[in-house]
Amino acid sequence: MKTSKNSSDALAREVMERLDVLAGISESPDNLTRRYLTAEHASANAQVCEWMQKAGMTARVDAVGNVIGRYEGMRPGAPALILGSHLDTVIDAGRYDGMLGVVLPISCIAELNAVGERLPFAIEVIGFGDEEGVRFQSTYLGSSPVAGTFRKELLERKDRDGLSLGDALTAFGLDPDKIDSAARRQTDVLGYVEIHIEQGPVLERQDCAVGIVTAISGATRLEIMLNGEAGHAGTVPMTERRDALMAAAEIILGVEEICRSRDGLVGTVGQLDVSPGAVNVIPGAVRLSVDLRAAEDDTRQQALDKVNELVSSIGEKRKVESIVTKTHAVASVPCAPGLITGLSSAASICGHAAPKLSSGAGHDAAAMSALTDVGMLFVRCKGGISHNAGESIEMSDVAVAAEVLCKFLKTFDETGKTCHDK
Amino acid sequence: MKTSKNSSDALAREVMERLDVLAGISESPDNLTRRYLTAEHASANAQVCEWMQKAGMTARVDAVGNVIGRYEGMRPGAPALILGSHLDTVIDAGRYDGMLGVVLPISCIAELNAVGERLPFAIEVIGFGDEEGVRFQSTYLGSSPVAGTFRKELLERKDRDGLSLGDALTAFGLDPDKIDSAARRQTDVLGYVEIHIEQGPVLERQDCAVGIVTAISGATRLEIMLNGEAGHAGTVPMTERRDALMAAAEIILGVEEICRSRDGLVGTVGQLDVSPGAVNVIPGAVRLSVDLRAAEDDTRQQALDKVNELVSSIGEKRKVESIVTKTHAVASVPCAPGLITGLSSAASICGHAAPKLSSGAGHDAAAMSALTDVGMLFVRCKGGISHNAGESIEMSDVAVAAEVLCKFLKTFDETGKTCHDK
Repeated sequence: MKTSKNSSDALAREVMERLDVLAGISESPDNLTRRYLTAEHASANAQVCEWMQKAGMTARVDAVGNVIGRYEGMRPGAPALILGSHLDTVIDAGRYDGMLGVVLPISCIAELNAVGERLPFAIEVIGFGDEEGVRFQSTYLGSSPVAGTFRKELLERKDRDGLSLGDALTAFGLDPDKIDSAARRQTDVLGYVEIHIEQGPVLERQDCAVGIVTAISGATRLEIMLNGEAGHAGTVPMTERRDALMAAAEIILGVEEICRSRDGLVGTVGQLDVSPGAVNVIPGAVRLSVDLRAAEDDTRQQALDKVNELVSSIGEKRKVESIVTKTHAVASVPCAPGLITGLSSAASICGHAAPKLSSGAGHDAAAMSALTDVGMLFVRCKGGISHNAGESIEMSDVAVAAEVLCKFLKTFDETGKTCHDK
Repeated sequence: MKTSKNSSDALAREVMERLDVLAGISESPDNLTRRYLTAEHASANAQVCEWMQKAGMTARVDAVGNVIGRYEGMRPGAPALILGSHLDTVIDAGRYDGMLGVVLPISCIAELNAVGERLPFAIEVIGFGDEEGVRFQSTYLGSSPVAGTFRKELLERKDRDGLSLGDALTAFGLDPDKIDSAARRQTDVLGYVEIHIEQGPVLERQDCAVGIVTAISGATRLEIMLNGEAGHAGTVPMTERRDALMAAAEIILGVEEICRSRDGLVGTVGQLDVSPGAVNVIPGAVRLSVDLRAAEDDTRQQALDKVNELVSSIGEKRKVESIVTKTHAVASVPCAPGLITGLSSAASICGHAAPKLSSGAGHDAAAMSALTDVGMLFVRCKGGISHNAGESIEMSDVAVAAEVLCKFLKTFDETGKTCHDK
């Protein structure tokens, strides 16, 4: 397989055209919205199956609605390197988040197929049915069954219309009782590599088309309740106040300071509600959220400890009662060193700078890490904007990603799962 | 007239009992709620009229529903010193805010009447129908017509049921076309003195039953819009953010610092809305309110200038656009030096410490200042709590206030509007 500049440009054009086709399959006429197990999900699966088959792959839909294409290696039935991402979207989504990681690999495999080239291992491409979790408020409903970590109680989870996940699977033509059959055996899988838009500004700032993910950040979410004392905005002297919003303001700036002190650590206060919330009443209570993420779990834990100390000392100083509740915590997922090296070498061979960076957002790779080694290739996106219609990528960056992926596939060593120059 | 300790205790007991009676006249069976021009307002007026007449006063309801009692002086038709406050309440109110300033003067006058004592001037007591502004969202609907500053366009203002103020006056048995007749001539009025609970913690902290108000604070309200950039809580490094809530937090703490630097200056951020308000999204926009109050307008203006500078410099530093809109501004109302001196002397003669303080809340006295000199006597209230059922005052403090008011009336000099020891 030769991947010349011309062929990767043509491939990128095909990828962009196909992403436009998928963007047309939407629940809404006004924007792109495609939730799990909807009619539009079925249409997208059918379209992707068609492309897979055209690329010389066998294609099927698994027990939870994921579409899976398989391109056999030199020896039929060989373990597979899995490539993929998700086909569902948020409400009013962009057209690259998820879909790029399904469509691009198919086009790369089509190139292999066009010259009848087989690799020493099979390649599969999975278009996961649910990653965003919009419909059932639970993420990784597509990839966790494949990784064998699906929790059966989620079948009872209901969408906004009161339809359970189990019933939605049935309505989609699937059998919820057979959900276990979606799980893959570790011996059948060599690794999982996901191509995804960065959804952040780092590659754009560094002027690089692609980057290699070192880890998917762990995250801790807190809900902090602050109870001070409401009072008349005109009659209570400043020194007599127990203003919950003043305490919150100190905490917010403290979170920023803590997170600025370490690279790769981020902290966000995204929600804040003031009670009673009248212009002439001193805030008696404030509820705020804190979201902490870091590539290393130690870093996140240290930050968490500092935030807890901060809240407690500010509460004491201001005579404002504080209650901190941990609402969510997931460990970071390190990418496999072999896959990091493999993707880096492929980029280097192709002459593309590919900085290493961590992923602050969750991805199917996080779920797949329970099954196998994972790696991710990020593609630059405009302004780091994602999860809305303003999501944008350059065709030339897609060409770079295609070139790197094709080279990676050619150089992937299925035995040691490391990479060597071929 | 002699105001012995015994008589002021009896008087205070009567006042407390009458306040309990008024507290029973409510629109709600569960709490005290009495809005302007309701059936309960009419009942309260009727009750107050009865007490006025019992105290030897003539009583009438004026063109806007205020109840007015008059106790003639030595010479019938002489100019009057007006005492009073309001009879309307907030929703789920306490029983002292407003009512104390109507009920207590009636009992003091009853003491004069009991011994047939006439003063060189008339005394009137007004129970204003609307100060809180709950029903028509416009304050001083009772006192501004008396002061001659009522704006006719307010007659079109509608309550939550769509009934206009004009129609509500008609339904109450009044004629909206005759509203001008409520205005008093300056030559008929010597001054206005209002007794009111402090609604703040200053007297309690200083361990004083009463205090003399030097000024009703002026107030400026701002709405500040901050527009940064929303983004993914996981993917945007701290240094790349334009987080509107971080800017807001700095502004909130800045407002506190500015207001802590001057006695009598207070600043409150009572409302804050975060957009989009999701736990995993960097706040793109924040709207917050600022309420600044000071007894001196210069102090308030200087604080306002500092807040404007602060918002602008924080916005620049954080690349967050800021738009500051002044939504409300009222000048401070200084109490008349003669009335301050008169009330202070009366307290001193009676042997009560009565610290001077400014009023951070608005009162009918502010509206009445357009007509005549105003003075206010504050009565300590528990914990500074007001505008809810927890409002509480001590009978012994009411006795002190009654003693001071009786002494003030006896020593008030109607010619120079100053006080001398009689």
